[in-house]
Amino acid sequence: MKSHTEYLVMETPERRAMVNITPRVAEAVKKSGIREGLVLVNAMHITASVFINDDESGLHHDYDVWLERLAPHAPTSQYRHNDTGEDNADAHLKRQVMGREVVVAITGGRLDFGPWEQIFYGEFDGRRKKRVLVKVLGD
Amino acid sequence: MKSHTEYLVMETPERRAMVNITPRVAEAVKKSGIREGLVLVNAMHITASVFINDDESGLHHDYDVWLERLAPHAPTSQYRHNDTGEDNADAHLKRQVMGREVVVAITGGRLDFGPWEQIFYGEFDGRRKKRVLVKVLGD
Amino acid sequence: MKSHTEYLVMETPERRAMVNITPRVAEAVKKSGIREGLVLVNAMHITASVFINDDESGLHHDYDVWLERLAPHAPTSQYRHNDTGEDNADAHLKRQVMGREVVVAITGGRLDFGPWEQIFYGEFDGRRKKRVLVKVLGD
Repeated sequence: MKSHTEYLVMETPERRAMVNITPRVAEAVKKSGIREGLVLVNAMHITASVFINDDESGLHHDYDVWLERLAPHAPTSQYRHNDTGEDNADAHLKRQVMGREVVVAITGGRLDFGPWEQIFYGEFDGRRKKRVLVKVLGD
Repeated sequence: MKSHTEYLVMETPERRAMVNITPRVAEAVKKSGIREGLVLVNAMHITASVFINDDESGLHHDYDVWLERLAPHAPTSQYRHNDTGEDNADAHLKRQVMGREVVVAITGGRLDFGPWEQIFYGEFDGRRKKRVLVKVLGD
Repeated sequence: MKSHTEYLVMETPERRAMVNITPRVAEAVKKSGIREGLVLVNAMHITASVFINDDESGLHHDYDVWLERLAPHAPTSQYRHNDTGEDNADAHLKRQVMGREVVVAITGGRLDFGPWEQIFYGEFDGRRKKRVLVKVLGD
C-alpha cells in the first residue's frame, strides 16, 4: 500500500467564494504514483467545505443565494456562537449543507469522474489562509 | 491490497426517485473477495445523490416534500443556472443536502451496517441514463 | 495493509444531543498501529450523525435551533413516516443535513486535523442505545 499527503493553501479575498481545485488534486494523485485507490480531500477549517459539482458560475451564484437563505449571515446577533466575539456562525451552518470532504476513486491512475464532476473549495469565512488536505491511498 | 470497480447504470422514468441499490453494492463487495476494507459508492452525475437511510416509502415521500420546500423546482427562472437552457438548478441544490457519496466499512467480507441502514440512489433530474461508481478497497 | 474495527456505544438521555467522540476515535487509531491511512467514523443508526466541527456550546445550540427550523419535530402529523407509529421523521431529515459519516486522514499515526476540527456524534432521536462504527485502514 502506498500513500501520499499534500496540503493546499487557500486564501480568498472575499468572505464567500468557490474555487475549482480539481487540477491540484489531479496533480497530487499523479505525484502519488497510485493507480488504484481512493483520495480524500477535506477542508481543515470548519467554516469551509470541499464538494463536487458543476463548474458553472450561474450555479455558484445560486448556491450562494440559497445558502444565505437557509443560514443568513445577518443579523449576526441571532447566533449564540457569535457571542464569543466571532461573526461567522452562519459559515459553520453553510459548511454543513455543502459538506466537509469528498472521497474520490482512482482508477488507472486517474480521478474516476463522471462527465461534469469537478472538486470545489467552498469558502464561507475567507480573507485569511486556510488549508485543504489531500490524502491519496492505494497501490 | 486489492481493489474492485463497478459502474451501475441507473435510469428512472420520473424526474425524482429513490432506488435501493444495497443488493448491487453487496454483490460488488462479494465479487471483490475483500474481507476487510472500505467501499465508496458515489453518484457520477451532479444532480443525483447516494445516501444511506431507511427503506420506508413514507420517509421517501417526506424527503421529497422537504427537499422541494428547501429548494423548489419552480419557478425555474429563480435560478441563474437555468439561464444556460437547463431547468435543473434545483436538482444541484437538492443533491448537496442529500450528499454525493457514502463510504461503508467491510468487515468479515460484508457491508458492516446497523439494523436499518440501506444505500439509496437519489435522482433529482432523471429520465436519462446515469452512472453510480462502486469502488472496493482492502484485503 | 492493516485494519482495525471498533463499535462505540452511545446513549444520550435527551432526544437531541451532540457528543465529542474525538478522544475515542484517536484511541482506536492508536490501537490500530496504523501510521498512514484513513479512518471512517459513521453512525450505524439512521436518525443520528457523525460530523466534524467546533467544540463550542453556543454553536451547538445554534445547530439545534437551525435544524429545528429546517426540519421541525412538531406537528409530527406533517410527516408520512410517522404514520408507521414513529414520531422521529424529523430526525431522519436532520441527519441528512449533518451527514452520516466522516473520513479522516491518518498521518504519522495521528488524526491529521486542522486547528479546530473535532468529531461529534449528533443524536436526533436519543434515549436509547445506538452504535458508531470506527474503521481504520492503512499501513
